[in-house]
Amino acid sequence: MTTAQPLRIAIAGLGTVGAGVIRLLEANASLIAARAGRPITVVAVSARDRGKDRGIDLAPYAWEDDMAALAGRGEVDVVVELVGGSDGKALELARAALEAGKPLVTANKAMIAHHGIELAEIAASHDVPLKFEAAVAGGIPVVKGLREGAAANAIERVYGILNGTCNYILSTMEDTGADFAATLGEAQAKGYAEADPTFDIEGVDAAHKLAILAAIAFGSRIDFAAVRCTGISRVRAADIAQAATLGYVVRLVGIADLDPVEGAEPRLLQRVRPCLVPLTHPLAAVDGPTNAVVAEGDYSGRLLFQGAGAGDKPTASAVVADLIDVARGDTAPPFSVPVDQLRTLAPADLGQRTGKTYLRFSVADRPGVLAEITAAMRDANVSIESLIQQGNDDDSDEVLIAMVTHDGQEKCVTEALELLAGSESLTAPPLVMPIISD
Amino acid sequence: MTTAQPLRIAIAGLGTVGAGVIRLLEANASLIAARAGRPITVVAVSARDRGKDRGIDLAPYAWEDDMAALAGRGEVDVVVELVGGSDGKALELARAALEAGKPLVTANKAMIAHHGIELAEIAASHDVPLKFEAAVAGGIPVVKGLREGAAANAIERVYGILNGTCNYILSTMEDTGADFAATLGEAQAKGYAEADPTFDIEGVDAAHKLAILAAIAFGSRIDFAAVRCTGISRVRAADIAQAATLGYVVRLVGIADLDPVEGAEPRLLQRVRPCLVPLTHPLAAVDGPTNAVVAEGDYSGRLLFQGAGAGDKPTASAVVADLIDVARGDTAPPFSVPVDQLRTLAPADLGQRTGKTYLRFSVADRPGVLAEITAAMRDANVSIESLIQQGNDDDSDEVLIAMVTHDGQEKCVTEALELLAGSESLTAPPLVMPIISD
Repeated sequence: MTTAQPLRIAIAGLGTVGAGVIRLLEANASLIAARAGRPITVVAVSARDRGKDRGIDLAPYAWEDDMAALAGRGEVDVVVELVGGSDGKALELARAALEAGKPLVTANKAMIAHHGIELAEIAASHDVPLKFEAAVAGGIPVVKGLREGAAANAIERVYGILNGTCNYILSTMEDTGADFAATLGEAQAKGYAEADPTFDIEGVDAAHKLAILAAIAFGSRIDFAAVRCTGISRVRAADIAQAATLGYVVRLVGIADLDPVEGAEPRLLQRVRPCLVPLTHPLAAVDGPTNAVVAEGDYSGRLLFQGAGAGDKPTASAVVADLIDVARGDTAPPFSVPVDQLRTLAPADLGQRTGKTYLRFSVADRPGVLAEITAAMRDANVSIESLIQQGNDDDSDEVLIAMVTHDGQEKCVTEALELLAGSESLTAPPLVMPIISD
Repeated sequence: MTTAQPLRIAIAGLGTVGAGVIRLLEANASLIAARAGRPITVVAVSARDRGKDRGIDLAPYAWEDDMAALAGRGEVDVVVELVGGSDGKALELARAALEAGKPLVTANKAMIAHHGIELAEIAASHDVPLKFEAAVAGGIPVVKGLREGAAANAIERVYGILNGTCNYILSTMEDTGADFAATLGEAQAKGYAEADPTFDIEGVDAAHKLAILAAIAFGSRIDFAAVRCTGISRVRAADIAQAATLGYVVRLVGIADLDPVEGAEPRLLQRVRPCLVPLTHPLAAVDGPTNAVVAEGDYSGRLLFQGAGAGDKPTASAVVADLIDVARGDTAPPFSVPVDQLRTLAPADLGQRTGKTYLRFSVADRPGVLAEITAAMRDANVSIESLIQQGNDDDSDEVLIAMVTHDGQEKCVTEALELLAGSESLTAPPLVMPIISD
């Protein structure tokens, strides 16, 4: 239907996502050409191992052993970086592509979280697009949704379930009553968790995505280092059961919002933590490896974007959506406003957060422990809404005390925990989970 | 920050949405300018009554008594149509704007459903944008999400809760146990339903939105006339209670999908009907006036977009998002592919649908009625999964028989109902609700 020049792309990285992109461009070639206004064709590729069987025929494409050389090839219009890793070859290629005046499309959340501003500056200086829809929440078009769909709004808060591995583990623990370690093992066996799951379960992956979302939502420079991050490895089956009796589910939630400062730029509050989510909240229904992002705009109200957060096909869908935008001459700045207009926001003090908090103590089963804990709460001005003490299932003499505070400042909870630090009554560090308001 | 020329807009229609757009452009002027690359300023307005108090100062703007004249004003870059109505002044203005080579932004679902293709043709011939994000699902950026975010996908099905009034009524009936008429009255008192609610409760408004979504999803010419539409006015409290005991909620759902045809274009199936939605489905959690749209792509998988489906602020958010796109030189075709490439899809036969169905009969309380109904089911090859007969609450001798069929073709259900047509046993026409699969 179209006689326009094809958009010629080079792909670096031929793992499951790279192969997925090649398959998608072939499977939906005619509809992609119609929507893009011209065909999108792969002309060159690069990966670590040329000979590996990926189930796709690489013969039609030029091969480069040196990934960065893809950027210099004259016939390449756009470079697609699917190598991964915040630095190294991925970053080298990204810089080379943009410096050569070529649009860059990437699925690399770590690279964007660490170097997104630098790359956006190079892109701006050469007036070419830098696009990373696939870096946040897989197949969900939430970068576009925030950057363009919600563009008229001052975003007040952006938060969501940003890591499918953690969500799979937590929702499975909820369904089965199994403990964390067993559920992680099962997730690894099913391919929902990596052999080394640290980046996922400790919240680093979610923190990468949150830092990117915050920059888009608030028009601010990415500040990944300021994300306060707690993973899910200390969440016990007992916590999930306790949350259920209170009307909550446990989810790893990344939240970014602004703490207003009189007469100055607001401070930026970014944290990734296991949270209690009320059953009536849309995030409570997000099960398995699904991701979901909520953006609260001053005019739009609460917007929810939900879908597959990972996987070769959803991620390829996001990569190719970016390519279609590039083919149509997309001009939107990567972080919603031009990079030289992004604000630098100082990190907010987490203690300023106000709300209810769930606290769980593992304590020795002996007299006076409950008095010690409740005294610390009183001394730190933490008001307790409910408290449950229960014996542990196993034969240990460990007892669990779970409590929910009234609305209050988080710094009071921190102070209470400091008062209890080093107490011989505690058999493990306490677990603190904020409660999301409905 | 920016020295670019402002985008100068004219607004026709100063109801709650028009006034909301003016307020939003003022409230968020600096962030809108940063995201749009230039300021967006209102230069001219038109409405029915110049003197009406809208809480905004119209003095800065030129006034036109004749709306269509807005299009001819030399200083106007873009026309925003917020008058409403499928024809008349809105259509006259829309044509005039596009024929004058000016982009048109509209929130008018009826006009797009009836005349969207004609308007897209005029827009294409003058190479200007036609944008209508606000016409579908209020503040939710689902037009953009489908058209651009999911652009790499062959969409297999698009469906959702597209009318906030109906969803408010159905979810309130669920919460309170009240009947339809009382709940409608309450919705009218609260402003969630119009004085004349026909367009909403009979599903016409949802059908407008569904026809637009189907065109974008499938790259096909809008066929509003082919939408099969049943409203919610015949849903009783007893149906909702019955659905609840079976694990479902009742929602008015618009669904569009394709019925494949060997060696030819598929047929398009579009229907708006009250449906039973399993409690585990994301649409079941959509309460009150919220809207939600699900798009199932062949690569993205299931994408969910949820938010406020109406209201002055969310609708203004969508209108201004379109204006920002226009300011940045948006080039995406209104219905995802250029209008001359849209397919003409014949309507599918609704009877081909396969699935479970909920049927409710109101019958006279006398011997033989159940035998008559079950015989008709047998003769039409409808297999019954469960059946409940219950007396009515009031003193009438009417009895309700609710049944759920096994998976089967909908035409069999239709045939069974035809066998029962005219039966003196039935005290009211049967209610048929398809069951959405999870």
